Amino acid sequence: MRSVDLLIEKINVLQLWESSLTLQRGEFLKVKGSVDTRLYFVESGCLRVFLMPEEEELTIRFAYQNNLFVALDSFISEAPSDLYIQAIKKTKLRVMSKSAFTRLLNSEADAAHWWRDILEVLVFQQFERETDLLISSPAERYRRVLARSPQLFQEVPHKYIASYLRMTPETLSRLKKS
Amino acid sequence: MRSVDLLIEKINVLQLWESSLTLQRGEFLKVKGSVDTRLYFVESGCLRVFLMPEEEELTIRFAYQNNLFVALDSFISEAPSDLYIQAIKKTKLRVMSKSAFTRLLNSEADAAHWWRDILEVLVFQQFERETDLLISSPAERYRRVLARSPQLFQEVPHKYIASYLRMTPETLSRLKKS
Repeated sequence: MRSVDLLIEKINVLQLWESSLTLQRGEFLKVKGSVDTRLYFVESGCLRVFLMPEEEELTIRFAYQNNLFVALDSFISEAPSDLYIQAIKKTKLRVMSKSAFTRLLNSEADAAHWWRDILEVLVFQQFERETDLLISSPAERYRRVLARSPQLFQEVPHKYIASYLRMTPETLSRLKKS
Repeated sequence: MRSVDLLIEKINVLQLWESSLTLQRGEFLKVKGSVDTRLYFVESGCLRVFLMPEEEELTIRFAYQNNLFVALDSFISEAPSDLYIQAIKKTKLRVMSKSAFTRLLNSEADAAHWWRDILEVLVFQQFERETDLLISSPAERYRRVLARSPQLFQEVPHKYIASYLRMTPETLSRLKKS
């Protein structure tokens, strides 16, 4: 079992989820300028995370069913962040405050250990993403992400995959066919 | 005191460094295709981390004096990685194996706690770096990195800063003057 699944199971057993939340398709969980330090579990649905430093929406992450997720930078810094988080289909979330999560990590050594594993995986994934962004060939970026994240191509609309891969929807269509 | 300094102090007090290593300027600590799972402390000097997926060297990180560092992806995955790590001046390192480091984390709760803090900071920094890479304006990239990492501009040669910022040395010179 993956550390993330063990941690989810522990939170379920201890009944630490504090509330739940349903977002309709297109609805925002967070917008630029807000703080969000909560931990979420995606019961169903899918979300995308994007930035808009200039005029274009830059999709940088997705959150899938049966996974934990947080507003990365704001969860860690506890400060306002530039992230937008939007449901791309109807999405049900379980919610836990950071203070409750911190209490869990400080009282349960196995939970703290799993969280450390999860952070290491996250560091590794972010490193892979950085490498993707530095590769100028669209075909090579597509090949790397397809090998790493087949789920992306099953669950996420074409236009958001193209945005994540930093290419036009037309280039992505061409690569999918080839 | 920062968690990283507390962790370094603890490793020093427990005398867990297993060896030391001196690299001459230009010498490589790691090249593409190799595994490196060791933890390092930079006693003096400076290193740069780069990728070369196509023909160009892409500088992605620096390791400064009095800091810990690892070959990020390989340390976590324990698999061969694409990273090159090179001393950009004469550099002295203390070295610890991953197995000794893991024993420390599993036996000392405070060390495990500091490592969790360090991983969270790393996740946050990587997120900032990803945002940098997505910003198309060289002036804005320069402004963000200058605000975040003044040390970079004191310790690292101009050409490597330009590579890190994804701009030509000429553009960087122009931005420094403006």
